[in-house]
Amino acid sequence: MMRSNRRLAALTTLGASLGLAASLAFAQQANWHPSKWGAKDEIGAANYLTPERAAAAAKLVKTGKVYSLGIEVTPDTPAFPPRGCKLYIVQPGQHAGATLGETKTSYNDDILNCWVGIGSQLDGLGHIGIDNVYYNGVHAKDFVDSTGLKKYGIEKVPPMVTRGVLLDMAGYLGVDVVKEGTAFNKAEIEGAARKQGVEIREGDVVLFHTGWLSLIDKDPKRYGSVEPGLGKEGALYLVGKGVVAVGADTWGLEVLPFEKGVGVFEVHQILLAKNGTYILENMNTAPLAQDKAYEFMFVLGQNKYKGAVQSMINPVAIR
Amino acid sequence: MMRSNRRLAALTTLGASLGLAASLAFAQQANWHPSKWGAKDEIGAANYLTPERAAAAAKLVKTGKVYSLGIEVTPDTPAFPPRGCKLYIVQPGQHAGATLGETKTSYNDDILNCWVGIGSQLDGLGHIGIDNVYYNGVHAKDFVDSTGLKKYGIEKVPPMVTRGVLLDMAGYLGVDVVKEGTAFNKAEIEGAARKQGVEIREGDVVLFHTGWLSLIDKDPKRYGSVEPGLGKEGALYLVGKGVVAVGADTWGLEVLPFEKGVGVFEVHQILLAKNGTYILENMNTAPLAQDKAYEFMFVLGQNKYKGAVQSMINPVAIR
Amino acid sequence: MMRSNRRLAALTTLGASLGLAASLAFAQQANWHPSKWGAKDEIGAANYLTPERAAAAAKLVKTGKVYSLGIEVTPDTPAFPPRGCKLYIVQPGQHAGATLGETKTSYNDDILNCWVGIGSQLDGLGHIGIDNVYYNGVHAKDFVDSTGLKKYGIEKVPPMVTRGVLLDMAGYLGVDVVKEGTAFNKAEIEGAARKQGVEIREGDVVLFHTGWLSLIDKDPKRYGSVEPGLGKEGALYLVGKGVVAVGADTWGLEVLPFEKGVGVFEVHQILLAKNGTYILENMNTAPLAQDKAYEFMFVLGQNKYKGAVQSMINPVAIR
Amino acid sequence: MMRSNRRLAALTTLGASLGLAASLAFAQQANWHPSKWGAKDEIGAANYLTPERAAAAAKLVKTGKVYSLGIEVTPDTPAFPPRGCKLYIVQPGQHAGATLGETKTSYNDDILNCWVGIGSQLDGLGHIGIDNVYYNGVHAKDFVDSTGLKKYGIEKVPPMVTRGVLLDMAGYLGVDVVKEGTAFNKAEIEGAARKQGVEIREGDVVLFHTGWLSLIDKDPKRYGSVEPGLGKEGALYLVGKGVVAVGADTWGLEVLPFEKGVGVFEVHQILLAKNGTYILENMNTAPLAQDKAYEFMFVLGQNKYKGAVQSMINPVAIR
Repeated sequence: MMRSNRRLAALTTLGASLGLAASLAFAQQANWHPSKWGAKDEIGAANYLTPERAAAAAKLVKTGKVYSLGIEVTPDTPAFPPRGCKLYIVQPGQHAGATLGETKTSYNDDILNCWVGIGSQLDGLGHIGIDNVYYNGVHAKDFVDSTGLKKYGIEKVPPMVTRGVLLDMAGYLGVDVVKEGTAFNKAEIEGAARKQGVEIREGDVVLFHTGWLSLIDKDPKRYGSVEPGLGKEGALYLVGKGVVAVGADTWGLEVLPFEKGVGVFEVHQILLAKNGTYILENMNTAPLAQDKAYEFMFVLGQNKYKGAVQSMINPVAIR
Repeated sequence: MMRSNRRLAALTTLGASLGLAASLAFAQQANWHPSKWGAKDEIGAANYLTPERAAAAAKLVKTGKVYSLGIEVTPDTPAFPPRGCKLYIVQPGQHAGATLGETKTSYNDDILNCWVGIGSQLDGLGHIGIDNVYYNGVHAKDFVDSTGLKKYGIEKVPPMVTRGVLLDMAGYLGVDVVKEGTAFNKAEIEGAARKQGVEIREGDVVLFHTGWLSLIDKDPKRYGSVEPGLGKEGALYLVGKGVVAVGADTWGLEVLPFEKGVGVFEVHQILLAKNGTYILENMNTAPLAQDKAYEFMFVLGQNKYKGAVQSMINPVAIR
Repeated sequence: MMRSNRRLAALTTLGASLGLAASLAFAQQANWHPSKWGAKDEIGAANYLTPERAAAAAKLVKTGKVYSLGIEVTPDTPAFPPRGCKLYIVQPGQHAGATLGETKTSYNDDILNCWVGIGSQLDGLGHIGIDNVYYNGVHAKDFVDSTGLKKYGIEKVPPMVTRGVLLDMAGYLGVDVVKEGTAFNKAEIEGAARKQGVEIREGDVVLFHTGWLSLIDKDPKRYGSVEPGLGKEGALYLVGKGVVAVGADTWGLEVLPFEKGVGVFEVHQILLAKNGTYILENMNTAPLAQDKAYEFMFVLGQNKYKGAVQSMINPVAIR
Repeated sequence: MMRSNRRLAALTTLGASLGLAASLAFAQQANWHPSKWGAKDEIGAANYLTPERAAAAAKLVKTGKVYSLGIEVTPDTPAFPPRGCKLYIVQPGQHAGATLGETKTSYNDDILNCWVGIGSQLDGLGHIGIDNVYYNGVHAKDFVDSTGLKKYGIEKVPPMVTRGVLLDMAGYLGVDVVKEGTAFNKAEIEGAARKQGVEIREGDVVLFHTGWLSLIDKDPKRYGSVEPGLGKEGALYLVGKGVVAVGADTWGLEVLPFEKGVGVFEVHQILLAKNGTYILENMNTAPLAQDKAYEFMFVLGQNKYKGAVQSMINPVAIR
């Protein structure tokens, strides 16, 4: 179905109507594999990461102010059902306060029973597929195992050390919290970038600030059921720019309710499955927006549990 | 016991015999709380982190080469008993390959049943205590809860963006793998630093390369039961230097078997409980040693699960 | 402390004032170990179970009507904090509906991340202690291990096949739901037994019906914070009778708020620690009460996870 | 495929060649749904359980000797991959030996991270399907949910109180341990029953003793990879008899390697999916065989975790 001529035609028309060049990204939408990095590639847009870009990102650091983009997670953090997370603190071998050795060592240890996709997270390329077919056209039956993915495990993603760009959509729209259902497409992205005086370049990590994260405690139900976010055209636009990852201060990056005529998590499909572009969710962007920090060094080293679909993260912005 | 005059006297003598100035760090050993950052402090040596040091660290980046210091973790990764880790891959709501919506979205999700202290890890200040008393003199009964620490939770630790220093002890000792039981004390630390032409400064993260991590697959039993590592004098020396964290390519940083006259995990006690100095374990230092990368920008943003004792990590070195 | 003369005196006086003979059970309260079954005994009142009693219980079966005394458990079942339970259904190796072999075998499997003490449960003798000392005077440090009890593991408890007795306290008190804080002591137990025309004998399992379980869905907060139940004198009385186990249709058997002058879960201490008498919680007694089934064959075979403190259960009553 | 005429013909021929009447059970094999208990039925052969049969079973009790048919489970118990089980013992709110209240209550609690299908277990009707279609023709997509089955949850199975029959196949074959790959079909079942002087009746639970369980510690690899057990013809034979459940002292009941021409776990398909007949695994039958206890009262009350596929169990035999 995804390769039908009719659909290709429709997308070509869409591309034309958007006034976009017939970019490789667009051509890929109907016939999306092999990926532009070859049929064996497992890291997608992380191929854009280069030492040159890392070195250039380091040059963006002026004051050394550091931003922790990860949010705190608790058992009550809203998450896409049936996700949840529990932590247990234990004191192995120290029952009733017993200690170890002459210097009376005590210790606490901890156990997580946790869905990985909770709080601030990096979606790997094995997260979302199209009719059970994932990035680079690999079918679920060929890489999904009950105890870990045999391809696209999160451990494969190299550290992201590159230029980060914040698009303050709340500021652009003149609100504290962008309304649910507000889609960020070409016009909004270009508008916000122009207003801020930043451009989006190949190899960037782009983060949207919407203010939505401020609802996580105040109205967790609203927070977790809808959101403003990236639209389908906007996703194609950013893919065309060659970004490594797109993130937001929302639980799922893409706009919800979904745009008219756009499928269930189709923006995820476009980014992850079709283009190998990573997604960053629940990013704590407010301090960046507050400081008008629109450009910064972005550093993410995610946990490397082998075969994991995704990772709980805490990326660092420095400027 | 820890505050007895006799012990204070002994430590003062030890300090003198080591040729060290009677630093605050030393004075603290017998009467170790309140901490030098006050009785309420919860982050210890992370207080050494400053924007200036972050900016200076960014200036160390020349080529932009990036090193992922975290190791891959699997269910077979050796860990301090009874620690272990299991991952499950699931496809919620997609039984028998069912998909979501018109664009036929499929997705994988994952669940971790995992001790947090596995693979590459950051030990928080609530990890190790002395007779149930932890950093800043806080008793276990006053901050340990079964579902999360009420103080010293790992989410409190700010991102570590600072200068990293590698001490290649294997290279210094002319071996591929430093033998278990080999203690790194003042002489070895200064010797290696001198050979490499680096100095250790306040605010640094210091990593030892020993080659020990190469045994993790080849001889997991040997790997996990003993190790070369930091000695007691060496720990006091580094504390005296004002480092933020000390790490190694071993499972527990400190030398095992423990040095003669040194208690069970007493080096952990000195670093974490007495001085608030963080510990980084199972650091993948081999590529740094290979490149003679003795000085680099170190960036660590750990997951912020609230109340966790520690975190699985993947710090990034950039130079 | 537990052995002080003053306390012994107090208990002796209590015994006298209750008009009870100075039974072994009472004498044990101040000096409660070794147990009446010897210092090495690990099964307590399960020693009362005999083939004769099992055979006699089978003779109570007349119509063959079977009662399932276990309740259904879900993630929402109220439980003593921080207890909870999660179940995951998975289809290992069958991604996207793939099947096994020529006859196309599909299968579901399931994973529990669950505190054991949830729903209908059997408390083992390692559950409750007195100042870290448990049944038969064994200190926590001598049998508690992080991955399983080295004594009193639930696997040690033999199947309970014996006479069951229901005391319908709601019926006795003429209410649908007995009010929280209502203590069942000698007078109430004897009163209800007399009204029903049953006697309590050595080797019995005694279950109280209070109607409280009907609140589990209707008012889970009230359900889980207080309850009617066994009082201290009542516990001593039943111990004196030589019962194997005492249960109720409440989450914790004993009356809450605790009786005046009675300690936190002191009834648990009396039953489990001091006398090796088992506790059965969240028993679905309503169908028995409805049928006026006051005497029946009671059969319980609990899961034998080695070293577990307790077990989720579903005892069977037959009459 | 399952309903093809060719297959029906083949099965009819098989039925004839076995000398069996064309029972409903057989007729169902090709066109196996709706079940004989109607299209809405969720409990299958548990419909054979009646008060009369429970009462008759109680009459089998003569001496009152009780047998615990469940085995002990530990983290090392071999299980069908990737199954496994971990238990953690914790002391909530009692850090460093702190106690609760004036009577100094201490307590241990426990957490299971455990696949349910481990050790002695009851397979529910949602466990095994045919091309994603389960008992009564229900498709996986219509009842399988990630957090619990919406049909066939193990909580639906009523307590099994009925006549139990042991077939001592090791005794019949004159060996201690029946060899892997040995199939129990009509001839072997009838032969063993005749030798023992017992008959198999509607409503029975039939258990095979093979001695295989003695390998669980001695040779866990052999234990878990193959087994003697029920053959396809034998399964159809027992279904024809109207048994409630079939069990064995093996991990998977059915013979492995599978019989020639028999599919992967096809005996499971015949019993569970096609006929709603329950399976009991890892039954500790040796003490029954030792006592020549061929007929007994069988009582099983399994944990009622809602929506679970199966249950860890400890059935009780009494005679």
